Amino acid sequence: MKQLVLVRHGESEWNKKNLFTGWTDVDLSEKGWEEARSAGAMMRDEGFVFDRCYTSYLRRAIHTAHAALGEMDLEWIDEVKDWRLNERHYGALQGLNKSETAEKYGEEQVLLWRRSYDVRPPALSEEDPRNPGKEARYEGAPAEGRPLTESLKDTVARVVPYYEGTIRKDVEAGRKVVVFAHGNSIRALVKYLDGMSDEEITKVNIPTGVPLVYTFDDSMSVVSKRYLGDADAVAAKQKAVSEQGKKKQ
Amino acid sequence: MKQLVLVRHGESEWNKKNLFTGWTDVDLSEKGWEEARSAGAMMRDEGFVFDRCYTSYLRRAIHTAHAALGEMDLEWIDEVKDWRLNERHYGALQGLNKSETAEKYGEEQVLLWRRSYDVRPPALSEEDPRNPGKEARYEGAPAEGRPLTESLKDTVARVVPYYEGTIRKDVEAGRKVVVFAHGNSIRALVKYLDGMSDEEITKVNIPTGVPLVYTFDDSMSVVSKRYLGDADAVAAKQKAVSEQGKKKQ
Repeated sequence: MKQLVLVRHGESEWNKKNLFTGWTDVDLSEKGWEEARSAGAMMRDEGFVFDRCYTSYLRRAIHTAHAALGEMDLEWIDEVKDWRLNERHYGALQGLNKSETAEKYGEEQVLLWRRSYDVRPPALSEEDPRNPGKEARYEGAPAEGRPLTESLKDTVARVVPYYEGTIRKDVEAGRKVVVFAHGNSIRALVKYLDGMSDEEITKVNIPTGVPLVYTFDDSMSVVSKRYLGDADAVAAKQKAVSEQGKKKQ
Repeated sequence: MKQLVLVRHGESEWNKKNLFTGWTDVDLSEKGWEEARSAGAMMRDEGFVFDRCYTSYLRRAIHTAHAALGEMDLEWIDEVKDWRLNERHYGALQGLNKSETAEKYGEEQVLLWRRSYDVRPPALSEEDPRNPGKEARYEGAPAEGRPLTESLKDTVARVVPYYEGTIRKDVEAGRKVVVFAHGNSIRALVKYLDGMSDEEITKVNIPTGVPLVYTFDDSMSVVSKRYLGDADAVAAKQKAVSEQGKKKQ
């Protein structure tokens, strides 16, 4: 039986402040570290072991990996990192408060930016210091690895080939793989694995710090999918994610 | 110009207690974490960047990597781990106090175990729970990856082929590589790189948390070697290492 486990990083400093984060390299909040350790404890208690871990280039995913694997006494496995697992790039919205942006542009526009499949938020300018082209870590990346904004569709277009060319091959070869990534890079994987339409995936919310386990048959077709842990807690976390773009009550 | 940087992990909980550690997977002490961050700060301030990091399977080296790379904003580089970079296995001495062992067996015997090239300490028994053969992480390793004791010669015999087959190829291909490892796995590399005799290497002490920079020409011959930071501080750290096997004053 072949398996793949996906874990969305715990709460970051900017999740906490309700800011659009995207490729901004902020750290986990204290709660986020705790969520990461708790994800590790859940996997440990269910007897999961891994021999390879994938993360994005962003420290909130990397630190989630370190903390979770620490709980599992698995810090010794290889860590492979790739920009293709990064969060969706949020363009010029990065650093803006989600509620304030809803006040300014209207909830509908924010919902469109956050939840439509192919609408990109306003782009960063080339000169913006946050242009990934100015960062050493994206130097080796092709042009799409230095985006100034992305739609979910753009994110899918980089995550899926990486899955097909790298992660899937590992799982197929019998490796026990865990991926620590982000809301939208995991949604991209879920869309692909579950064969969802562009419309369906916009309604899916990935809870933070809850391991999502896919099981495959020998031809790598999905046999089952489940979140670890308590179903009510998962549902509550998903609801919290979906409500972030609303105006403050 | 090709370079390779070697960093011995900071003080561990067992260094602090003056216990023989070997393959026991103890964590860094508070001072060890600080040494690791300081090693990272030294490399950052001298403008070092890396695109790949190697560590052993032991968390004191892995945590040194995480803390040092964190200081350098380089946590996003790949981490490759291998048991071949582990500390020398200290056999049945693991867990014993170095000073008490000197009281019991005499300083001369302890010096022989610690500093001779080819003398192995008493071996663990096969049944010992500390036998690496009982640990998941060494399952994929060949027989020499599940030692019950090792001499420095044994350590050299696993470290050098790993350097030649893996690390050296990366450096040769132009990758910027840093290795976070242990007193004896680094001594094994130093012996090889400096072309030292079996006798010479027994007199070399590797300071903790001080980056050691090797520079190579295009044919991978060593051109120069230097420790970063203050020479007096390095000498003081080396002296402290060499005196660990003495009886308490």
